[in-house]
Amino acid sequence: MQMPAPSADILARRARITRRLREVLPGDAVIDDPVETRAYECDGLTAYRCPPLAAVLPSTTEEVAAVLRVCHEERVPVVPRGAGTSLAGGALPTADSVILGVARLTQVLETDYDNRFIRVQTGRTNLSVTGAVEADGFFYAPDPSSQLACAIAGNIGMNSGGAHCLKYGVTTNNLLGVTLVQMDGTVLELGGAHMDAGGYDLLGLICGSEGQLGVVTEATLRILPKPEGARPALIGFGSNEVAGACVSDIIKAGILPVAIEFMDRPCIIATENFAKAGYPDCEALLIVEVEGSEAEIDGQLGLIRQIAARHDPVEFRESQSEDESRKIWLGRKSAFGAMGVMGDYICLDGTIPVSELPFVLRRIGELSAQFGLKVANVFHAGDGNMHPLILFDANKPGDLETCEAMGAEILKLCVEVGGCLTGEHGVGIEKRDLMNVQFAPGDLEAQMRVKDVFDPGWLLNPAKVFPLEASESRRAG
Amino acid sequence: MQMPAPSADILARRARITRRLREVLPGDAVIDDPVETRAYECDGLTAYRCPPLAAVLPSTTEEVAAVLRVCHEERVPVVPRGAGTSLAGGALPTADSVILGVARLTQVLETDYDNRFIRVQTGRTNLSVTGAVEADGFFYAPDPSSQLACAIAGNIGMNSGGAHCLKYGVTTNNLLGVTLVQMDGTVLELGGAHMDAGGYDLLGLICGSEGQLGVVTEATLRILPKPEGARPALIGFGSNEVAGACVSDIIKAGILPVAIEFMDRPCIIATENFAKAGYPDCEALLIVEVEGSEAEIDGQLGLIRQIAARHDPVEFRESQSEDESRKIWLGRKSAFGAMGVMGDYICLDGTIPVSELPFVLRRIGELSAQFGLKVANVFHAGDGNMHPLILFDANKPGDLETCEAMGAEILKLCVEVGGCLTGEHGVGIEKRDLMNVQFAPGDLEAQMRVKDVFDPGWLLNPAKVFPLEASESRRAG
Repeated sequence: MQMPAPSADILARRARITRRLREVLPGDAVIDDPVETRAYECDGLTAYRCPPLAAVLPSTTEEVAAVLRVCHEERVPVVPRGAGTSLAGGALPTADSVILGVARLTQVLETDYDNRFIRVQTGRTNLSVTGAVEADGFFYAPDPSSQLACAIAGNIGMNSGGAHCLKYGVTTNNLLGVTLVQMDGTVLELGGAHMDAGGYDLLGLICGSEGQLGVVTEATLRILPKPEGARPALIGFGSNEVAGACVSDIIKAGILPVAIEFMDRPCIIATENFAKAGYPDCEALLIVEVEGSEAEIDGQLGLIRQIAARHDPVEFRESQSEDESRKIWLGRKSAFGAMGVMGDYICLDGTIPVSELPFVLRRIGELSAQFGLKVANVFHAGDGNMHPLILFDANKPGDLETCEAMGAEILKLCVEVGGCLTGEHGVGIEKRDLMNVQFAPGDLEAQMRVKDVFDPGWLLNPAKVFPLEASESRRAG
Repeated sequence: MQMPAPSADILARRARITRRLREVLPGDAVIDDPVETRAYECDGLTAYRCPPLAAVLPSTTEEVAAVLRVCHEERVPVVPRGAGTSLAGGALPTADSVILGVARLTQVLETDYDNRFIRVQTGRTNLSVTGAVEADGFFYAPDPSSQLACAIAGNIGMNSGGAHCLKYGVTTNNLLGVTLVQMDGTVLELGGAHMDAGGYDLLGLICGSEGQLGVVTEATLRILPKPEGARPALIGFGSNEVAGACVSDIIKAGILPVAIEFMDRPCIIATENFAKAGYPDCEALLIVEVEGSEAEIDGQLGLIRQIAARHDPVEFRESQSEDESRKIWLGRKSAFGAMGVMGDYICLDGTIPVSELPFVLRRIGELSAQFGLKVANVFHAGDGNMHPLILFDANKPGDLETCEAMGAEILKLCVEVGGCLTGEHGVGIEKRDLMNVQFAPGDLEAQMRVKDVFDPGWLLNPAKVFPLEASESRRAG
């Protein structure tokens, strides 16, 4: 897309801003060459792109504070960016914004096994947090699919989950404290290595606020001892509805597997072609993983087998070896890649009460027929966090729009049955205009008033989370 | 204490306020007779007393909203009150305030076992939430010692825990949604029966905000299936430090009992005299309870026995029967009552990293000698939530002040070792002036700005949580 050339005023302002940023950062930490800023023009929601005014890569909390002070004085919007893996456009720049990347904030600051925490800079990737403690028998529980790449900063911004959050909770349940730099450059320490302190729970408020209330530069994370063992079972079913009913029954029975993952036929076929995981040929399958001692695993899988038997499973295959377990998970973790090979898709993140799974899966099938677009379902069924992938052809005019319209219908359905628009991906720009479906005007107003408090100029990660009209009028006002 | 007679102006204003309250509530729901308002002059922190202007007892969210609209228009402070069991003065009135009691908000609105939640009005007591679902095999996990009396509204206000929160978390981990009436009478629905939704986590912010951001009238609570079985073990030790080190080792080993309760010698003796629980004669004892199937219980207690053996236990007694288990817990649950028989006390609530238990217990012993006041320790050791009871004589001039000074030293010690002032009792008026020890001025300012958003006139539960000077200047400003 050809952009109009910027005016002389705008060019002078840009030059001043980058000069001021260079005064507070090392030279290679400020990027304003238009070729290089292109690397920051989008995140995982690649349908939307816009290069920023500049990108900065600070290495310390002090450098982050210095950047924000400059941007605050210059009234430049700032878009914090983790690893850029957001599927909701959470790190999408605006043309007048500075991208604040945390890629150089990768240090481990402290590990404390007695009190089970690790303190890290937030540019560190999710998986490398576990990497820092696994030799000593510990791990960090939240495990988004993108965990090899995604940064803790983004996990905190989006309150990320993962396959194992059914047992271990999402980021907010594993976050003990943060260092937060506010838009004016002042630094707050929220929480710490102890139980919830007195006063208001600002830590909980920051987690999931999509980088709109401040920039999180350091985090104290709960780490857990690795379980004695873990074993998945693959359960194949004759239909989506029956598989959904089985999930609901497992949850209702009070068993707590670490993960209940769901894949429907289109997803099974795509994954099988791609990763050759040896999945059974069926309409829907569940991967149910349990943890503990051998005796505990046997006990829990025995109960799950009994429940599954009431739903006429096509197959119940308990993993017999480490190698088989790895293969089962490899299939699941390859599912998104496998779908990508098949074509373009958007990935939804609606979350519903588990008992509504059979109904919602049936309605998604009906919507698929109505809109004429294929849907594949692969998701964290145990906590009702659905990830329908709607396939479309980016080269076919109007197909993306049809796909987005169908996605909106599915998300509205999630809200109608008592669920919500997003379980772990965040709102970003993708779902901002659907926020009116989820929240009454007064509820959104209360959230926006909190934004006013932390960022009165609405400079941090602008045009996200709230309906565009609402946030623009707020920013202007 | 003799109060000066109120002026004619004040009397006229009071009359107008109670008249307006009577216009929006049934006649028996407004209490302004000075004899009757005395029932609301204090909570569990009985050293502080002040009768309110009036007390109201609404039965619905609409009535609560109507009360708040009147008080908002008249600029009358409102003190929300659960069951009045706060140990921190969280429900202490001011003379110009209206007590808003939730005692009539006791209905169960919905139970949903498939999705594991119950929706209740918040005046319902903690134990009667479990009572509503236990016949169907479920329970509500947070279990404050006062659970027979305390209301869900107060649990939410203080983010209450209990003996079993080591495994199940505190209130915030079990709270899915609330209906919140703001000071101006508008009603917000926060959260719901699903995972964390998009937008900011206002639900998390409300939980633990001590009734200062709004009045919670309805709550959706997570319920859990009752475990197959549970079994406590009593472990006696030769010193506090050794018992503390054993707790630290159990946590470090990655075992997760449902409860690790700690009692020191003064508390053991008082409890034994009072409840005759058959506790061993030792310097310190732990009650460690584990849950699950018989095999799981045997496995976990086996590991705990091995760890305890490294600390030369005086006795390791595993409960052999339901009856013995009940007796063990009866002792622990009687501890506060038993101490009350011995004299006056204040109960602290400082929380520390578990690895600091041996050091902090030793320092408390030294402070006890220095101040000349006896201390008994009984607390949730597994999560480092200490409840030192400092004994004093209310009839001895100056003894309360010495006691409070010693309490402040202990709480400062908790903060110094990386802990916090309060784990589950809240700040109330008791610890408001110590908030400066826990929080930097900028941290407190951020909290107070959030208060400004929800309650610009600072009318809700005034003079609590923040240092008095700070909240008074805020209110005036």
